Amino acid sequence: MTEQHSARTVASQPRAARARPVVPPGPRRGLGVGELRLDGGFWGALQETNAGATLQHCLDWMEQLGWLGNFDRVAEGVTGGERPGWQFSDSEVYKLLEALAWEYGRTGDPATGALLGKVVDRVAAAQDEDGYLNTCFGHAGQAGRYTDLSTGHELYVTGHLLQAAVARVRTVGADDALVDVARRAADHVCREFGADGQAGICGHPEIELGLAELGRALDEPRYTEQARLFVERRGHGTLAPIALLSPAYFQDDVPVRDADVWRGHAVRALYLAAGAVDVAMDTGDDDLRTAVERQWTRSVERRTYLTGGMGSRHQDEGFGDDWELPPDRAYCETCAGVASVMVSWRLLLATGEVRYADLIERTLYNVVATSPRGDGRAFFYANPLQQREPGADVRPDAVNPRAEGGVRAPWFDVSCCPTNVARTLASWQAYAAFVEEAPGGSSDGGSDGGFVVSLAQYAAGDLRLSVDDRDPGQGGGELALRVTTDYPHDGRIRVEVTGVPERPVTLRLRVPHWADGAMLTCPDGTTTAVGPGWATAGAAGTPALAVGDVVMLDLPMAPRLTWPDPRVDAARGTVAVERGPLVLALESVDLPDGVLLDQVRLDPAVAPRAQDDGAVVRAAVVPLPGGGAGTPPFGSSGPGGALTPSSDTGVPAALDLTLVPYHRWAERGPSTMRVFVPTARPEEIR
Amino acid sequence: MTEQHSARTVASQPRAARARPVVPPGPRRGLGVGELRLDGGFWGALQETNAGATLQHCLDWMEQLGWLGNFDRVAEGVTGGERPGWQFSDSEVYKLLEALAWEYGRTGDPATGALLGKVVDRVAAAQDEDGYLNTCFGHAGQAGRYTDLSTGHELYVTGHLLQAAVARVRTVGADDALVDVARRAADHVCREFGADGQAGICGHPEIELGLAELGRALDEPRYTEQARLFVERRGHGTLAPIALLSPAYFQDDVPVRDADVWRGHAVRALYLAAGAVDVAMDTGDDDLRTAVERQWTRSVERRTYLTGGMGSRHQDEGFGDDWELPPDRAYCETCAGVASVMVSWRLLLATGEVRYADLIERTLYNVVATSPRGDGRAFFYANPLQQREPGADVRPDAVNPRAEGGVRAPWFDVSCCPTNVARTLASWQAYAAFVEEAPGGSSDGGSDGGFVVSLAQYAAGDLRLSVDDRDPGQGGGELALRVTTDYPHDGRIRVEVTGVPERPVTLRLRVPHWADGAMLTCPDGTTTAVGPGWATAGAAGTPALAVGDVVMLDLPMAPRLTWPDPRVDAARGTVAVERGPLVLALESVDLPDGVLLDQVRLDPAVAPRAQDDGAVVRAAVVPLPGGGAGTPPFGSSGPGGALTPSSDTGVPAALDLTLVPYHRWAERGPSTMRVFVPTARPEEIR
Repeated sequence: MTEQHSARTVASQPRAARARPVVPPGPRRGLGVGELRLDGGFWGALQETNAGATLQHCLDWMEQLGWLGNFDRVAEGVTGGERPGWQFSDSEVYKLLEALAWEYGRTGDPATGALLGKVVDRVAAAQDEDGYLNTCFGHAGQAGRYTDLSTGHELYVTGHLLQAAVARVRTVGADDALVDVARRAADHVCREFGADGQAGICGHPEIELGLAELGRALDEPRYTEQARLFVERRGHGTLAPIALLSPAYFQDDVPVRDADVWRGHAVRALYLAAGAVDVAMDTGDDDLRTAVERQWTRSVERRTYLTGGMGSRHQDEGFGDDWELPPDRAYCETCAGVASVMVSWRLLLATGEVRYADLIERTLYNVVATSPRGDGRAFFYANPLQQREPGADVRPDAVNPRAEGGVRAPWFDVSCCPTNVARTLASWQAYAAFVEEAPGGSSDGGSDGGFVVSLAQYAAGDLRLSVDDRDPGQGGGELALRVTTDYPHDGRIRVEVTGVPERPVTLRLRVPHWADGAMLTCPDGTTTAVGPGWATAGAAGTPALAVGDVVMLDLPMAPRLTWPDPRVDAARGTVAVERGPLVLALESVDLPDGVLLDQVRLDPAVAPRAQDDGAVVRAAVVPLPGGGAGTPPFGSSGPGGALTPSSDTGVPAALDLTLVPYHRWAERGPSTMRVFVPTARPEEIR
Repeated sequence: MTEQHSARTVASQPRAARARPVVPPGPRRGLGVGELRLDGGFWGALQETNAGATLQHCLDWMEQLGWLGNFDRVAEGVTGGERPGWQFSDSEVYKLLEALAWEYGRTGDPATGALLGKVVDRVAAAQDEDGYLNTCFGHAGQAGRYTDLSTGHELYVTGHLLQAAVARVRTVGADDALVDVARRAADHVCREFGADGQAGICGHPEIELGLAELGRALDEPRYTEQARLFVERRGHGTLAPIALLSPAYFQDDVPVRDADVWRGHAVRALYLAAGAVDVAMDTGDDDLRTAVERQWTRSVERRTYLTGGMGSRHQDEGFGDDWELPPDRAYCETCAGVASVMVSWRLLLATGEVRYADLIERTLYNVVATSPRGDGRAFFYANPLQQREPGADVRPDAVNPRAEGGVRAPWFDVSCCPTNVARTLASWQAYAAFVEEAPGGSSDGGSDGGFVVSLAQYAAGDLRLSVDDRDPGQGGGELALRVTTDYPHDGRIRVEVTGVPERPVTLRLRVPHWADGAMLTCPDGTTTAVGPGWATAGAAGTPALAVGDVVMLDLPMAPRLTWPDPRVDAARGTVAVERGPLVLALESVDLPDGVLLDQVRLDPAVAPRAQDDGAVVRAAVVPLPGGGAGTPPFGSSGPGGALTPSSDTGVPAALDLTLVPYHRWAERGPSTMRVFVPTARPEEIR
């Protein structure tokens, strides 16, 4: 996307102002993608690269590999023979369509709209008469429809189609070719898997949230009910086993409402959780909603990486046991980061609890933003917190194995992550804020408490929030805020009120859980310390905003040491460095010549100091034990082996080292890297 | 096996006296399985349980699951339809045949012989006219022969058939039904894959060592040459890729002679290495042999667990990067332990270096012996060094997923380990000692230095070593030793010479690398300290043995602390306890009520003391941080979180805890366990 595109005002796309990926019933609504115009900054830059490079990049690869051509072959009735791509490759096309839909909805860029239209035409041409749409099953020379629910991914693929259609309904309206396709596909699913149909579920959850949201978007209770059926059917061991994997792999071991923690394949677990929250909200099922909250709590506290990444195991791309969080073999699939944001956003709208917004921030900055290379044309699939060997095996210009790390790759054999990043960045605005009625507020306007706007994520730009969306009878214009900040490079966030609606507005700003010493300056000029949580920008009793009001939040951005819980065995004896929302990393390219990453010991007694968006730390460089014993790497020489500092290695025994933001590691060629750095013992420091 | 069987003397099976699994050209020969009669003890007991329970157990499961019936169906020409078992299930039958062959060869037990004969009949009936033998390929309704070299395992399966036949040649002679089958199968392989045939290799190495040893046993150079071809063809990327796995998975990334380290699937890497040593010895290829020695050195020093276990990753059952040795996700497949012993034994015979015998001991006690349950009817497949959750998911009476841990299972979907344990235990004697000409010795007998017998492993029993095996012209009887020991329960090993041959004999005893303070008492009554390595049992200049000589080796068996190399990130800040060759483990069933394994901190300042075969250590019990923050398990509260000892938890802050031998963990019900125990900081100890 060019600057010209990003400069388009939301006024040109009035519907997009309220276009949101998730619109649950309940007291809170999120931001429309057109309600916030980003003014560059961290996310604005990523969004522009996404629009200007990544979308076309994904399209080109899928064209080249024949994943788009699969639709043409079905349309032309020539489906015999080898089919390019995995059985779920259609879903990449749909995720790209969703990204294009949000991008077009936000900007109105005609080229984006035209691109989208061409792909939709090819997709639509492949739909069967009865609404079934899948390029891998059900046609000449292919396996029959729904003959392999465990691994076929048919309903998963359809779920992504429905999500793409939701983006269209919300940005251009229901009278749309893609929406027609999705409606027919959803109707087919309801006929096939409804209460009177087969009681199956898909090995990969996703259809649940697709149906739920399309049901909301089109006001179609059959879809809502079908989503409910799929959620309730799960966990009873009905899916045919996959060799060497347990039913927990696809969450078919325990019913959703009975589970205490996420387990198995992380993306599956998280898409299912998101769909379960949708169903819980649509049906008023508090038991189901609290089950997901309970799972979130334990999973975040015991099975989540410092980056917000989820998934400790490569074998099944899955969660590990509690406290099983190896930095080197962290899977932390980019898609699981996207899915985690989806779950937390739904729980944030359901509960208003700040912890969900905190995790969204952590995950966006340290997983989602880590995946794409600066130019938007290569990606990480897995996001480990330690790289032992430089990623020399990655072919930078070819299709790569999905999870081998160290260098971002342009495309993968399983390439779910690039399109997932694309759709998330294209709709980033949706997650930035939410609005709700003030406590005690009534629906008759007048002297009530009005409504509360909560800023959940920070980015420079203009927010124009339509107040009459939820209360059409109220009329009353929009709230306009100008946010000025260089966050996360700088911790100061300035919010100026440039327009207010008729009803009173209270503004809340999120103080992240890591912000110890945050200061809030209210419109009346008073500055007070605010603790983590939602900080109301106004004096008690008179919080309502007026045009010209300025609120300043100052978050502490000094680098800080972060210690692992003692039960995280794989990180014992180490410390990480964070700066604001950014996890930092020590990369081998920042070490002096001749120093190995394995030799570095961080001195926790010296406070790290800020440098750019990273930090400088004091470290010791220690010699390593020699080899040649011919025995396993364990011995009797005491803790740390021969780890006494020495000057005879030619490197200083103590020196300053630079850490960079984790999300930008591996941008300077293959390197080794670690987030958790072993700490020095006193005798190791000069 | 009953006591009656074990009491049979080797004299009843004269051929078995020299029956050895590996007979390379070169200066050293191993022990024949009939040359050592075990007198109970650690390995004698395991061998009896193997004979009395495991062999029939394996046979019963394979009968019940139809893996044996697969041979009948081929013989009867009814191969259409679903075939029970994985494509490599034939190999389990062959490994059981090998176990039965060694067992029968060692004991002459007629029931064992009859059992073997019945299975051989069914196998033989399934062989095709041209020698091809496989129940999964090449018949009606099956895929064609050798149509899937990457994953079909056809040559792998044949390799195990050949190893079984080797056991027969060496114990009953070449005039045997199983040997006939194997010879025809090997001839078929040579025709199909010889220099004039297709230049293929098998995705799973094994055929190489099977061909090499059968070539030695039958004096058939075509087999030797075919083994060489298979080894040389590997590493050139000719195997069709397996989805999501790299060519390193089956070692097709780098030629064997060029590789520096083992990588990919551990069992494959190790079987290949064993076959490569065989080829190197048969062809005098020093470059190839030293390549494997180089790989052994780096892999043992950087990619091997304290137990000797190999394989750090579940995903590909493979080696990880250097220093990637997570205790919790250690794969350490039992079969990789068996394969490691095979490689080290070959290198020991090739070089005489004591380090190979040291690793064999470590692996036998802590991997191979860990797998079988006490009753020999359940097994570990993976052997992790930490168990976070009690293994409640394992079904103790059913077929189980292969690598889910915590409880031994009677059988697995991939059930390679039980039969691999069985054949190893049945031939344990072979690895106990080796013999070679004394340095400077000449072949004309007389006043030469005679020969040297090196005891590599210790077990009570009677050793009767035929001297004229390698030098048939020498005649001269046998060396007879009576070994009395309760090793590894006790460190004292008494060796009495009960018979000597005509030529002089020098005796060497292995002093393990961990034995700091070993004492050797020679026949002349002098006692001296001996360091790790080979200790010669005699005064310099007059080492030759005489009847009545007694040698005593006293190995220090006090429990000792073992620290991880500082590069083993996953074990930082912990210490392990070993006792003699036994790695110890702390199991939750040995903790006081209310104490969690996560709370234990070992005090390294207090020396562990021996208790039975385990140890008692001093430990602190520390409170754990509370939850509820809703953030990932990392924070700013300093190293170890709130880990200050407290008495308000109702448990003493310091107490003595018992560690048990790792090989016997999980024998008292599901438990959590760890080998590496976090160490206490001074402020945590009362």
